[in-house]
Amino acid sequence: MTTAIQTQVLQQVAQIFDQHVPFHNLLGLDIKHYDINGVEVVIKMKPELIGNIHQNILHGGVTATLLDVVGGLTVFAGLVASKENWTIEELQQRLTTLSTIDMRVDFLRPGRGEVFTGTGSVIRAGNRVSVCRMELHNEQGVHIAFGTGTYMVG
Amino acid sequence: MTTAIQTQVLQQVAQIFDQHVPFHNLLGLDIKHYDINGVEVVIKMKPELIGNIHQNILHGGVTATLLDVVGGLTVFAGLVASKENWTIEELQQRLTTLSTIDMRVDFLRPGRGEVFTGTGSVIRAGNRVSVCRMELHNEQGVHIAFGTGTYMVG
Amino acid sequence: MTTAIQTQVLQQVAQIFDQHVPFHNLLGLDIKHYDINGVEVVIKMKPELIGNIHQNILHGGVTATLLDVVGGLTVFAGLVASKENWTIEELQQRLTTLSTIDMRVDFLRPGRGEVFTGTGSVIRAGNRVSVCRMELHNEQGVHIAFGTGTYMVG
Amino acid sequence: MTTAIQTQVLQQVAQIFDQHVPFHNLLGLDIKHYDINGVEVVIKMKPELIGNIHQNILHGGVTATLLDVVGGLTVFAGLVASKENWTIEELQQRLTTLSTIDMRVDFLRPGRGEVFTGTGSVIRAGNRVSVCRMELHNEQGVHIAFGTGTYMVG
Repeated sequence: MTTAIQTQVLQQVAQIFDQHVPFHNLLGLDIKHYDINGVEVVIKMKPELIGNIHQNILHGGVTATLLDVVGGLTVFAGLVASKENWTIEELQQRLTTLSTIDMRVDFLRPGRGEVFTGTGSVIRAGNRVSVCRMELHNEQGVHIAFGTGTYMVG
Repeated sequence: MTTAIQTQVLQQVAQIFDQHVPFHNLLGLDIKHYDINGVEVVIKMKPELIGNIHQNILHGGVTATLLDVVGGLTVFAGLVASKENWTIEELQQRLTTLSTIDMRVDFLRPGRGEVFTGTGSVIRAGNRVSVCRMELHNEQGVHIAFGTGTYMVG
Repeated sequence: MTTAIQTQVLQQVAQIFDQHVPFHNLLGLDIKHYDINGVEVVIKMKPELIGNIHQNILHGGVTATLLDVVGGLTVFAGLVASKENWTIEELQQRLTTLSTIDMRVDFLRPGRGEVFTGTGSVIRAGNRVSVCRMELHNEQGVHIAFGTGTYMVG
Repeated sequence: MTTAIQTQVLQQVAQIFDQHVPFHNLLGLDIKHYDINGVEVVIKMKPELIGNIHQNILHGGVTATLLDVVGGLTVFAGLVASKENWTIEELQQRLTTLSTIDMRVDFLRPGRGEVFTGTGSVIRAGNRVSVCRMELHNEQGVHIAFGTGTYMVG
């Protein structure tokens, strides 16, 4: 069961990441879905995101950005899910601490496609450091990239 | 000594990466310097690149993008430097192969500053796979991030 | 279907890695299973492999070794599986090229247990460079570590 | 200046890692030097450490082990150096927390040689999480491998 506070905080976070992060707006990054079980972050191909004009493929930096955002949101959802009696203040405090320590990106295939969707899963849920694996697929289910990220969560 | 063909190809590559990659233009990425000894890639802070509006810091995705570009250009310069009798066609062919296999980014400090400069050095120069270490500093010399990238070069 | 040559080469490789690699013998590393679909590498806890005498846990270097071996064998199986008409000579040649370019290890939980089993799956199958994800579990199914490795295969 | 407590704790740690870690004894790992400025860890080639009998090269798992040990000792020295008024109890407590979160190893060249020396430098010194870069050279100064590790220090 998800508590009202958990739901409320995750909705606020989704709204911030979706609308109030300037770089996300520049890329057109869209938080499609976010709850205690995880996140779905989507980016639509547009000419400005191209890295190779001959092949019309997504720039690797866009891939890295999307995976990093997925990882941060995924580990934060895991933290929120880890206990039921959070106060709003505690979670807002944790949000200010949330940051990427390191990330590995594996570029598996060229970033061809119209819509790119990133998802993730927590593989180590700590009270201070969490680790997440992330994936990026295009609209045809082609697996474009993998990520592994270590995040500070407290 | 650098041959005329080496110089010419690197200048062409610098021009492409500086002016003809849409995502580089979106970010305002600037190839300040590029020759057989390495590259200097610069990005100026602007509101659209911010990842955290409360702290006015560069989005980690911008950092990752800059490090990835530095790595690719650095290993390509290393490849060009590895022999003197390249033809232009050979090097153009190699450029189409150039791609990132994987990259690790270590986010050392928050991306505060006005001008961010990325540099790199080849740590494994192969005929097919090269590895590079990259660094990002701000205008005060603060070390913001480290990168390690494995690139296909042939 | 698996051809006779594929089967024969993988059996030879399993035998070499199981019995004729001195460091594998030192650790007691055991290739439990190896075919075209993947590998299962097992190591039994013994006092010499301990990294922390107060907690009796496996040294992280043993974990890294096991994951690296799993990754190499997994990508080689993937290469063998990629076409049916290999000659023995071609595959033996490829085996001499097989080497790790880089590897990331995520240490998720302390290495407690009696028997540690490593498995992997190819996430990028190239003709020259392949990427693999690896996992290490103990005999109770506890997930001890994750790995991601980039390998030269040709 | 180094305080007596800093010196004493680092000497104790060096002695533990040099003599009382079973896996270090199995490999013949030797803590050559350890003080507040860093560590030098040495391993001598011996037949049991070989990974490839045709080429007589060090197993990649030995390389990974050595780099991981270097990273842990380096970040711990950095922590000890970060303030002068530690008590012995505080530092012993910190030592029990010391653990590797994740590590990347770049295998640059085959591990040929007689004596392998690992050194490192802290690139992010945190109160809870530190990041270190490590290097492995043989007795001729050939650069065999690079490492990057993220460690829990508190």
